[in-house]
Amino acid sequence: MELKRPLILISNDDGYLAKGINELIDYLRPLGEIVVVAPDSARSGSGCAITVTQPVHYDLVRKDVGLSIYKCSGTPTDCVKLSLFTILNGRKPDIIVSGINHGDNSATNVHNSGTMGVVIEGCLNDIPSVGFSICSHNPDVDFIHTKPFIFKIVDEILKKGLPMQTCLNVNFPNDEIKGIKVCTQARGYWTQEWESCPRKGDENYFWLTGTFIDADSNDEKTDRWALHHNYAAITPIQIDLTGYKFMNELNSWFK
Amino acid sequence: MELKRPLILISNDDGYLAKGINELIDYLRPLGEIVVVAPDSARSGSGCAITVTQPVHYDLVRKDVGLSIYKCSGTPTDCVKLSLFTILNGRKPDIIVSGINHGDNSATNVHNSGTMGVVIEGCLNDIPSVGFSICSHNPDVDFIHTKPFIFKIVDEILKKGLPMQTCLNVNFPNDEIKGIKVCTQARGYWTQEWESCPRKGDENYFWLTGTFIDADSNDEKTDRWALHHNYAAITPIQIDLTGYKFMNELNSWFK
Repeated sequence: MELKRPLILISNDDGYLAKGINELIDYLRPLGEIVVVAPDSARSGSGCAITVTQPVHYDLVRKDVGLSIYKCSGTPTDCVKLSLFTILNGRKPDIIVSGINHGDNSATNVHNSGTMGVVIEGCLNDIPSVGFSICSHNPDVDFIHTKPFIFKIVDEILKKGLPMQTCLNVNFPNDEIKGIKVCTQARGYWTQEWESCPRKGDENYFWLTGTFIDADSNDEKTDRWALHHNYAAITPIQIDLTGYKFMNELNSWFK
Repeated sequence: MELKRPLILISNDDGYLAKGINELIDYLRPLGEIVVVAPDSARSGSGCAITVTQPVHYDLVRKDVGLSIYKCSGTPTDCVKLSLFTILNGRKPDIIVSGINHGDNSATNVHNSGTMGVVIEGCLNDIPSVGFSICSHNPDVDFIHTKPFIFKIVDEILKKGLPMQTCLNVNFPNDEIKGIKVCTQARGYWTQEWESCPRKGDENYFWLTGTFIDADSNDEKTDRWALHHNYAAITPIQIDLTGYKFMNELNSWFK
């Protein structure tokens, strides 16, 4: 009897050539058959964007035993949607894994994260999904200390699944990892977000940049606290955004 | 004594020329000073995407008493971020209003919505924020039946504010509106999402399309039910995505 290996769909927002996704592929090959469908170039900050104004194209880049790699002209979310519909041809992945992102996606930044765009799209399709990010934008950052944690988390998900409408956002510190903390999404905000870059006398050009300010940096339950104290931060993310607590009061506005 | 009028920041994802945003401007002018910062062209499906790989540019299009309109080369989220930092020069809007979107943003589609990208960015900045959408993609759709509802909702928010980390997603049916229902975000999923559009023999080109399938169409609490029964659907949306219910079980994985 042949044991069917788990089908693992991998994507990211840094593009299929990024070091992070290639390390992730290496780490996860022992766990199953891997199909990679990732953007053809960097798509940082894509959030859950989809492409509606032009066609999306994909291409096979590499085919090996238990590993296929495709690049795609769309957003991270497009990659998931397109692979489910075309490349996987109706086969449902046992898990969708995103990353490893160069740069953390902790706190409220999950909203703008293409890494988490992959994960949320997987979750919307009732597929257990997890995203991994590291607190470094260095394209050649050393990921090796994250390997046992990624292996453990993906292995647990493959064994136990995840609750409906819930996915995972995992962020790693850039050096020594003391352990894993299950966290809440920290609050915070960006300041000094734009840098002027005038062009031919036109002062209205700006680069997005900025500094993230923690709003509750002493709260030991948050992902930001965990990262600042060298823990891997795992935050369960729900795709039902309904603000249930406000429904009664809101109802009273229209009585 | 001069009464200070509320400052109302308006954006959308259909671009500053869309009928929906221009109707919205007309409806809200009696309520305060209006600053519009909207994409220079259609940006549907932008979600909470931000622009990090190129500069973003803005231009004044029109200046009138109590009304300024700017177009911006960025995403809907960029429009909010850039206007807070540059155009408004530190003035905090009393409310951010997005839409009126041509096409509904009910159910789980809030994740991919540029209309709601504006609203979520406002909420992340602690500004009361609301998005309006109508169940029609017709660029010349008649919005007039939505006017009293929009006026009432914006007026209520200006008077009462919104709870921290909570914003509103309002969707209108395309014809008669029986009343307002405060709703939950319906579950559902897309099928038949891609349409092949081969080019010069290459079969790997696809257009995003698809049909949304309701997962709980008999649930009278949901926004989809309300819309199907000709009610305006108001769904409170929270920006804290933490899946609190799964935290204990997840913790047990790592004991």
